[in-house]
Amino acid sequence: MDLLLLFDYIGTFVFAISGTLTAAEKRLDIFGATMIGFVTAIGGGTLRDMMLGDLPVAWMRTNNYFWVIIAGVVVTIIFKKIVIKLKHTIFLFDTIGIATFTLLGLKKALLFQIDPAMAILMGLSSAVVGGVIRDTLCNELPLIFHREIYATACIAGALIYLFLRHFAVPEIFCELATVITIIIIRIVVVKYNIALPRLIIKE
Amino acid sequence: MDLLLLFDYIGTFVFAISGTLTAAEKRLDIFGATMIGFVTAIGGGTLRDMMLGDLPVAWMRTNNYFWVIIAGVVVTIIFKKIVIKLKHTIFLFDTIGIATFTLLGLKKALLFQIDPAMAILMGLSSAVVGGVIRDTLCNELPLIFHREIYATACIAGALIYLFLRHFAVPEIFCELATVITIIIIRIVVVKYNIALPRLIIKE
Amino acid sequence: MDLLLLFDYIGTFVFAISGTLTAAEKRLDIFGATMIGFVTAIGGGTLRDMMLGDLPVAWMRTNNYFWVIIAGVVVTIIFKKIVIKLKHTIFLFDTIGIATFTLLGLKKALLFQIDPAMAILMGLSSAVVGGVIRDTLCNELPLIFHREIYATACIAGALIYLFLRHFAVPEIFCELATVITIIIIRIVVVKYNIALPRLIIKE
Repeated sequence: MDLLLLFDYIGTFVFAISGTLTAAEKRLDIFGATMIGFVTAIGGGTLRDMMLGDLPVAWMRTNNYFWVIIAGVVVTIIFKKIVIKLKHTIFLFDTIGIATFTLLGLKKALLFQIDPAMAILMGLSSAVVGGVIRDTLCNELPLIFHREIYATACIAGALIYLFLRHFAVPEIFCELATVITIIIIRIVVVKYNIALPRLIIKE
Repeated sequence: MDLLLLFDYIGTFVFAISGTLTAAEKRLDIFGATMIGFVTAIGGGTLRDMMLGDLPVAWMRTNNYFWVIIAGVVVTIIFKKIVIKLKHTIFLFDTIGIATFTLLGLKKALLFQIDPAMAILMGLSSAVVGGVIRDTLCNELPLIFHREIYATACIAGALIYLFLRHFAVPEIFCELATVITIIIIRIVVVKYNIALPRLIIKE
Repeated sequence: MDLLLLFDYIGTFVFAISGTLTAAEKRLDIFGATMIGFVTAIGGGTLRDMMLGDLPVAWMRTNNYFWVIIAGVVVTIIFKKIVIKLKHTIFLFDTIGIATFTLLGLKKALLFQIDPAMAILMGLSSAVVGGVIRDTLCNELPLIFHREIYATACIAGALIYLFLRHFAVPEIFCELATVITIIIIRIVVVKYNIALPRLIIKE
């Protein structure tokens, strides 16, 4: 439980870094970078909570997320060269964040009595929507729609969770299996450069 | 009533197809195409429900919409050449979808005691917001803002509904008149290539 | 109180004008321009209310905002040359709008028991999100992320409000100080062309 919360903060922190870095590539000013850092970190959870009706949205009910995000943005601005060099470490933490966000979104949707098929979708969108908004605001085609298949990892992880839970496996093992599945798939995918087929329609 | 529900599913199915086709033009991968199919189909209803406070959003309370959308995406991916050739049929079903979404959005807003002027707006946005999100995510200027005047058809249909209801015309006739008005206007508009004047400001 | 409401309508009116003008630059049709006028004017408040859970969103509970926006759009379309020439006046009213939206967003968030740090964020997003959606829909990099620092003005104004309120200064003075601070900072910033440093990362 506490570990999950820690992972949640780690994910928020790393998502804020990724938003700030994307903003820097677009040569935004410091305010713009901070805003992109914020929407990247909380975009997915915000949409999830607005759709489920868990309002005010969860991240606004404590100020922890706020300061974690500010820390992510400030660290990126001050130590930008170091942050860029640490890209393997960031990739690992980013993957932990994605796995955690998926799991938390899935669990919350189930708590709200949402059908498992759509609960998976809620888990997925908790993990990916922040990045989609980041890319859209930066006027880019969202990365997740055409490059990397981490969404597939999230879906696989969510299915594992539902499968194990169905057989009454203790919650802690369901959660561990989910997070580990997502992390392993994503690392394998990136290492071997696996991509989903593009959808090409010739008229 | 049941017919309206059937039309709602038809609209959802066709909107999912249209999203998938747009994604294919942008050479997204299969996951990206599925996501675009989803947001096109449920984007309008989701925003409407989030604004009205009908939460969790309606399409998540049953899994029917989920599977209708998946079907639309899968059919498009497998039979893409056939789907493209059927464009006149798709256009017809798309128009039925738009008409139905407008009517359902309007009715729901009135149920939530929203003033008729804004209930029209809710009907309209139920019908068009999915397409706007689709185009924005695909990094295009939303089609509806500069090309086709189907929004005008939706507004006309909504006005007909309010007008007839004001004179206590039975609900079923109000609904039929609305849907038929929207369908006819849109077909005429497309057939004769009618467009709204562009707003050009020379400085 | 009444003055604040008047300012709110002025802001809504001017935001609708700014949306319509941006749409005209993009050569959208009249419907598209009206829609952009709408989202510019109500986008910030809508997101704020959806995040806080104040539903249906506030501007839909009366039809005043609807007609103020329609008026803004129509005036812009009919008197477009005059509107463009009045840009200094519009700038002033736009600034009043930004200041008012910030104050109202901040106050509402505090009313919903949101922590001050995030209440500032809610004030800020009430003021800027409409413009961000406008630019994103028009396929532009949002202006506020890279050009003008009016966000800084909003944050400064919000801090003044919290500071004065902390020392039990009467509400009316807190509000006046906030609005005046935001207006003055923004005018100074634009007059002397002050910009935040860009975030540039060389790899």
